[in-house]
Amino acid sequence: MNYPNGIKKENKILEPKSINYKNRGMSLEEDLNITNRYYIDNHIAYIYKKPTPIKVVKAEYIKEKYRVIREAYYSEPSTTDYNGIYKGYYIDYEAKETKNKTNFPLNNIHPHQIKHIRNIVSENGICFLIIRFTSLNKTYLLKAKDFLEFIDKEKRSSIPISYIEKLGYLIKDKFLKRIDYLEIVDNIWRL
Amino acid sequence: MNYPNGIKKENKILEPKSINYKNRGMSLEEDLNITNRYYIDNHIAYIYKKPTPIKVVKAEYIKEKYRVIREAYYSEPSTTDYNGIYKGYYIDYEAKETKNKTNFPLNNIHPHQIKHIRNIVSENGICFLIIRFTSLNKTYLLKAKDFLEFIDKEKRSSIPISYIEKLGYLIKDKFLKRIDYLEIVDNIWRL
Repeated sequence: MNYPNGIKKENKILEPKSINYKNRGMSLEEDLNITNRYYIDNHIAYIYKKPTPIKVVKAEYIKEKYRVIREAYYSEPSTTDYNGIYKGYYIDYEAKETKNKTNFPLNNIHPHQIKHIRNIVSENGICFLIIRFTSLNKTYLLKAKDFLEFIDKEKRSSIPISYIEKLGYLIKDKFLKRIDYLEIVDNIWRL
Repeated sequence: MNYPNGIKKENKILEPKSINYKNRGMSLEEDLNITNRYYIDNHIAYIYKKPTPIKVVKAEYIKEKYRVIREAYYSEPSTTDYNGIYKGYYIDYEAKETKNKTNFPLNNIHPHQIKHIRNIVSENGICFLIIRFTSLNKTYLLKAKDFLEFIDKEKRSSIPISYIEKLGYLIKDKFLKRIDYLEIVDNIWRL
C-alpha cells in the first residue's frame, strides 16, 4: 500500500501477494482424484471430493450469463473432504499428507471435521483417514475408530508413525487405481 | 468499458454488472439448511449441501495467512447438491424450485446430475428430488426412480405437476424442521 508523501504507517503492513493457482501441485489429492475417477468409470463406487467452501461477496457479468468472481473468501469446511457410496454403504474419509517422517501432526484436522468423524462413526458409516507420508512415499488407511481412540486417550499434538504403522493399513500404489483404498475397505469391513 | 474519443466498438459489449451477493434470498436452500441443521443437532441424520464448485485462478494475501480471492469462476457440479447418512444409509438428493404453476422445467437439472442420480439408484442408495413450486407454496419429494422413469419415457422439457402430485409426496411445512423430508423417507423406504 502506498501512502501519500512516502509516509509510513506505524504498524507493519504486508504487501499483498498474488497467488497464482494454475500450477499448484496437490499430489495426494491428484492421486485420489485419479483413483476415484477409476472407481466411478468402472461402476465400483461413487465417491467424490467435496468442493472447497468459498463465500462469494462480489461477482461481475463479463458476457451475458458469464460471470467472474471478483471477491470471495475461503470458509472452513464443516465436514471431511470425501464421501460417497460403495456397495450400498455410506463411505466418508479425510485425506492428509505430511512431510514429517516420524509423526502425523494433528493441527491438520479441524475440530469440525473431528466432530463430523464422530457423527459418522456413531451412524456406523464406513469412515477413515488416508494419511500420506510424502518423504517416505507411504500412504496409510487409518480407521476412524483408531484415530478417535488415539486423540481421546492421548493429549498430544501428533500421532507417532508407529501407531499408524501398527493399526493402520499400508495402501499399495497401483498404476490405474493409484491409491486402491477400497481393496482395504473390503477386508476391514468384510464387504 | 470506456473507449478513447468516444469510439464505439462494433459489437455490443455488455457493461460489467456487479452482483452483490450479500442480500440474496435463497428460500428453498435456506429452509433445507435449517432442516438439515435440526437433523444434525438432534443426531437424526448428517446431511449437508455440497459447496458450489469454484475454480480459483487468482488470490491475494491481504494479511499474513488471510487470503482474498480476486478471480474465480463457477464450475458445473458433477453430482447432486445434498448427501449424507441417515440411519446408516447413504442418502442423496437434489433440490430445485420453480415459479411455474403447472410444470417443473427439466433444464434445471444438468446431464451430469442425472447421470449421478442413475449411479446412486444402481447402488440402491436412497435418492430423490425435492421440488418446490414457489407460487403454490408446495414442496414435493419425488423418488429418483419415478423421476428417471419419466425422463426416459417422455421426451419432454418439463414434468407436469399432475405427475408430481400423483407419484410425489407433499412435504409438510413445520416450524422447527421446516421441510421434514426424512419423515417421508421413513415411510417410502420403510426405515
